[in-house]
Amino acid sequence: MLTKKTGLFVSFEGIDGSGKSTQARRLADTLRAMGHTVDLTREPGGSPGAEEIRALVLQGDPDRWSPETEILLFTAARRDHMERRILPALAAGQVVICDRFADSTRLYQGASRGDRRVLVDALHDLMIGREPDLTILIDMDPATGLARAKGRQGDEERFEDFGLDLQRTMRDGFLELAAAAPERFRVIDGRADEDSVAAAVLDAVRPALP
Amino acid sequence: MLTKKTGLFVSFEGIDGSGKSTQARRLADTLRAMGHTVDLTREPGGSPGAEEIRALVLQGDPDRWSPETEILLFTAARRDHMERRILPALAAGQVVICDRFADSTRLYQGASRGDRRVLVDALHDLMIGREPDLTILIDMDPATGLARAKGRQGDEERFEDFGLDLQRTMRDGFLELAAAAPERFRVIDGRADEDSVAAAVLDAVRPALP
Repeated sequence: MLTKKTGLFVSFEGIDGSGKSTQARRLADTLRAMGHTVDLTREPGGSPGAEEIRALVLQGDPDRWSPETEILLFTAARRDHMERRILPALAAGQVVICDRFADSTRLYQGASRGDRRVLVDALHDLMIGREPDLTILIDMDPATGLARAKGRQGDEERFEDFGLDLQRTMRDGFLELAAAAPERFRVIDGRADEDSVAAAVLDAVRPALP
Repeated sequence: MLTKKTGLFVSFEGIDGSGKSTQARRLADTLRAMGHTVDLTREPGGSPGAEEIRALVLQGDPDRWSPETEILLFTAARRDHMERRILPALAAGQVVICDRFADSTRLYQGASRGDRRVLVDALHDLMIGREPDLTILIDMDPATGLARAKGRQGDEERFEDFGLDLQRTMRDGFLELAAAAPERFRVIDGRADEDSVAAAVLDAVRPALP
């Protein structure tokens, strides 16, 4: 993999309905207006191959894949996304903004469906081996997030039918990940209005811009 | 969990055109005639999910996936195949005959496309963790195998266009794997007529039958 780091790799994390996708898009727009070249992407997916794997994982019966097979498929998609899109963009000095990255896998595949964090971390170390430079965690009340997420439910619903308990577990999990890696995480209160959240995100990212 | 091993897990390996698929099928027929319950399967694929992953890997441009992503996809398919088909059949006391298994990944993904054996083995240990009880290697002259394989080329041709050099490398690789694990491998000369090869395969498997 490429070793010289020139761009900036920012991931957005948070529970369903936290507003992270909206905020990722707003940050991309703002940075572009400031003159940066920005590549806004998302996981699972983000490259043609990874999008095909995404479709395989997200559609169909909830028991279609075991947690372990699912972790392997997500890791395959992430590897493709890294190789074909994220690393080349960073090497070209761009700001890469990614809606969800490995932290979502740590929680959704590693914790919520049985304690498989050790497996997720081992696979990440072996096959991905890199974290974002900065992770913006949009912290959100679990009930509010769930209500928002349910309002827009589409055909990729395998992961959004687990209810409030999952939302609570995931929120706690994200806060624990943030506490364990304070140099990488910035926790933003997502309950404020959208403009205020966007301003707080920009404040958090600005010092790290290339 | 049951620790007692009741069935028998036999894999067939060999270069393209070695006759291993024919011999796997003949062994299945013979064992059934002897009264055994046999599950004849193949990799990549073998379970509904793994077959979908197989289609993703085998069709399309040769550079569609990097070797690392491909290894992850094959491992995901194998995990699904193990969970959903092979292990349940073994637990029920059946003979599972699998046309290609992890040794093919070790050679085709681990060696032929750059030296990634360490990666393949690490992933296998982490996510699969089991070898066949017996591996039948049908040893074949590389040129003969290539001529046979070319005669039946279909739409899954990503791996069959690498020519005679690959066939030679793979044959040497299989023989090296066999030499390193003599308790698991039985090497059968595939140049004899089909009936003689089938008889030699049966002789090799018979002592291990449940």
